[in-house]
Amino acid sequence: MSELEQGAGRRRRAGGGREARRDARAAGGNVQLPFIRRKIATFDILDEEALEIIEANAETALSEFGIEFREDEEALAMWKDAGAEVDGERVCIPRGLCRQLIATAPAQFTQHARNPERSVEIGGKNTVFAPVYGPPFVRDLDGGRRYGTMEDFRNFVKLAYMAPALHHSGGTVCEPVDVPVAKRHLDMVYSHIRWSDKPFMGSVTHPMRAEDSVTMAKLVFGDQFVDDNCVMVSLINANSPMVFDATMLGALKVYARAGQGTVISPFILAGAMSPVTVAGTLTQILAEVMAGAAFAQMCRPGAPVIFGTFASSISMQSGAPTFGTPEPSLVLYGAAQLARRLGLPFRSGGSLCASKAADAQAAYESAQTLIPTVMGGVNFTLHAAGWLEGGLVSSYEKFVMDCDQLAMMQRFSEGVDMTENGQAMDAIQQVATGPETHYLGTAHTQANFQTAFYRSTIADNNSYEQWEAEGSKTADQRANALWKKWLADYQAPDLDPSIDEALLSFIEQKKAILPDGET
Amino acid sequence: MSELEQGAGRRRRAGGGREARRDARAAGGNVQLPFIRRKIATFDILDEEALEIIEANAETALSEFGIEFREDEEALAMWKDAGAEVDGERVCIPRGLCRQLIATAPAQFTQHARNPERSVEIGGKNTVFAPVYGPPFVRDLDGGRRYGTMEDFRNFVKLAYMAPALHHSGGTVCEPVDVPVAKRHLDMVYSHIRWSDKPFMGSVTHPMRAEDSVTMAKLVFGDQFVDDNCVMVSLINANSPMVFDATMLGALKVYARAGQGTVISPFILAGAMSPVTVAGTLTQILAEVMAGAAFAQMCRPGAPVIFGTFASSISMQSGAPTFGTPEPSLVLYGAAQLARRLGLPFRSGGSLCASKAADAQAAYESAQTLIPTVMGGVNFTLHAAGWLEGGLVSSYEKFVMDCDQLAMMQRFSEGVDMTENGQAMDAIQQVATGPETHYLGTAHTQANFQTAFYRSTIADNNSYEQWEAEGSKTADQRANALWKKWLADYQAPDLDPSIDEALLSFIEQKKAILPDGET
Repeated sequence: MSELEQGAGRRRRAGGGREARRDARAAGGNVQLPFIRRKIATFDILDEEALEIIEANAETALSEFGIEFREDEEALAMWKDAGAEVDGERVCIPRGLCRQLIATAPAQFTQHARNPERSVEIGGKNTVFAPVYGPPFVRDLDGGRRYGTMEDFRNFVKLAYMAPALHHSGGTVCEPVDVPVAKRHLDMVYSHIRWSDKPFMGSVTHPMRAEDSVTMAKLVFGDQFVDDNCVMVSLINANSPMVFDATMLGALKVYARAGQGTVISPFILAGAMSPVTVAGTLTQILAEVMAGAAFAQMCRPGAPVIFGTFASSISMQSGAPTFGTPEPSLVLYGAAQLARRLGLPFRSGGSLCASKAADAQAAYESAQTLIPTVMGGVNFTLHAAGWLEGGLVSSYEKFVMDCDQLAMMQRFSEGVDMTENGQAMDAIQQVATGPETHYLGTAHTQANFQTAFYRSTIADNNSYEQWEAEGSKTADQRANALWKKWLADYQAPDLDPSIDEALLSFIEQKKAILPDGET
Repeated sequence: MSELEQGAGRRRRAGGGREARRDARAAGGNVQLPFIRRKIATFDILDEEALEIIEANAETALSEFGIEFREDEEALAMWKDAGAEVDGERVCIPRGLCRQLIATAPAQFTQHARNPERSVEIGGKNTVFAPVYGPPFVRDLDGGRRYGTMEDFRNFVKLAYMAPALHHSGGTVCEPVDVPVAKRHLDMVYSHIRWSDKPFMGSVTHPMRAEDSVTMAKLVFGDQFVDDNCVMVSLINANSPMVFDATMLGALKVYARAGQGTVISPFILAGAMSPVTVAGTLTQILAEVMAGAAFAQMCRPGAPVIFGTFASSISMQSGAPTFGTPEPSLVLYGAAQLARRLGLPFRSGGSLCASKAADAQAAYESAQTLIPTVMGGVNFTLHAAGWLEGGLVSSYEKFVMDCDQLAMMQRFSEGVDMTENGQAMDAIQQVATGPETHYLGTAHTQANFQTAFYRSTIADNNSYEQWEAEGSKTADQRANALWKKWLADYQAPDLDPSIDEALLSFIEQKKAILPDGET
């Protein structure tokens, strides 16, 4: 911890009470929740026999059909050395080799934040929520749908900082298209560091950008600390079906060799990139993740690696991706079990939807993704807030609506309080035998009412008459007021000026040599 | 079955193919789904120790604090005979007595519909969805919010008949306030029989109305068949906390003695009618259901009885009921386990919400109720479609939106197909080793695409541009068109004219003697 102490963390050693007050002040009164340590069971959709069949099939796919590692001679040579059969870019991996290589990967690891109180545990019984990743567009009720800018990016970082149940600042919360592609990653990583103190993700669009992300992390945490600890997780998509491409392999190698976390994520629209069946899709996901995770371990044994999956299905009528339907839920539950069986942390789910507006469709679909996310035991959840329109849009209104749901699921994950206070027999006796005829006045209710029930930030529970008198507002209209309040209340967390200076100087230096044209 | 064969069922003995075509025609092309036979596990929130504590506490409440049976001398006498200690209207039930009495209740039973293909199994691994129950108001996008009428009632019966994943016609789908209170039940029961062929519920607002419901059922199914079989389930609310009132007891006695099903349902707004804690609320629910179910068995051993619970929490700020929050989900999961432990079918859940509009709030809250309903293993689900505004409103748009979600959950309940076709190894090989580079063109996809993925009736999965070109419609606007199409496509199922005549004549006779004033 010494490097960290010397870094940004050192000034956070104040007393808990002072810090808590400072935190509440900085977050405009929003009390931040730590990552979820679930006290409830996971829901398992598959029995042991089904899991065995799927893993045996995945091994068949890897050993007999093979998987491609494209345009990366080094990767192919590494696989050959490890004992795989390499034919052109096709790698056939003998049964059992992936599992053997993956054995060095941790089942759970800490991702450090620059504020140690915001560090998260990824894996085991823990769940971490991170915001939407990747949309080129943003949308709000006032301005409608438009390309994202660096200002939008900063806004979403600030909203994620303010959101009590977002435990992570995420990565590309929207694409800032007003910054040249080759320079964008610098501003994005800087924003996460400067405007939040929650953990964040690095760039993956080019190996050099991954290198820059690692360099910037080292300016914050110190070289040795970064080498010894995970301070970033980054998203490595498999190019399904059964392909890893050079860009992703390049970024994967940078992060794994730096000891940083990677999420090996098949990006699946079932029916196009995987079979139309759930078991078939699970088989392919497992094969792709096993190959990617094993490769990460070849790069550096012990580097944190997360079993990822993004799985939606397509409309067989139009080919369009669909969300919130039953099949992706089944895939999520099954993949979660396969990840646990493999001993890796699991990434999936979120608040996904196909809807173009933050309407009932968006909410049904998001809930149909988020609830399985929590019930299935996902450890790291991208897209937990803000996702709209199949991931093309970061929505301001949906962002805060989703955050409300996240906080509910966090409460749900705590399970049932079976203490004497939870059992409430004194209150039951008082009401059953009089003089109380309801519970509002009991001592037990008085003692517990402040924390008794989750209080939604979005829901309107008033009477029809009152709701009408207040303008018959729908949920998205109330959400519009809420995200504006959060941004108005936002106060930036402290950052050591010398670190800030070092970061800005690095960025300036890099920007001077990077091209402005599209690359 | 002979009575049933002589009744409405007899003309339905045609060949399966002809019947299926007739059904599809009658339902405007909507293919009706049978009740759910779940192939997935239930999600259990409590461990055995917690269940034991809660049941022991419930027994303490019943034996030491007591439960009131109000204004019903007969009920009190029956309890005394059974061995309970009766003090005024308070009944203290010795530990173990309720369980002993409940032992005669079936863990699963058939509720017969006049169309035998629509009969449902209630209990075990089965789930039956029924529409919203009780709202005095209706709402649609065209006419806004207004009092319900008999025309609205008929419309909702027709929509429930058309809905593939509603397995039950329900009861008071809305209050027809244009019909006098004392006569309303006759028109309501008639509507269910005449405009649907799915199973239905009887009236509970007065013992005489329960008698009328039984009489009308006998006109359809025959006296002996009704005495031997369950053809109605009816909703008996406990007057929580720890009270059964004379009206509900009167209706309960009528139905139980007629061998008909009852749902013993504590109606709980936690914090007011039960403790503010989940475990305390579960304790009270269990105590109330045990007393009510035991009483039903005293009326007629073997009469079907369902462990019911309706549990929401209240806003501790305003006292207003809230829905879709974490605590009621926890209560639902826990109560489901208590019901299974007691060996009774379980009723709870639905598509509950507090929202005044069919917006994102309505959808989030409904999904947060419906998903636990299915994951928890609810056997009989009232309010599965149409519920809005805390149950004050039957919404036309929400009705069809909810039906879409019900069909999704039905698909989800089927779990994962692990057959050879489900495993899809041929397709994976074809794509991994070429010449195919995606799955759309594989033989496996061609063979499976028609049934591969659930196809939503409400969701818009088109591109933003297409959605905009079509008027940027939100989900409720699309739902508005859908329910109108269902009503336009509706064709009434056949009903034996002699039965119809007998029902109409009975109703005419009763209406002539019943008062028009409010009672």
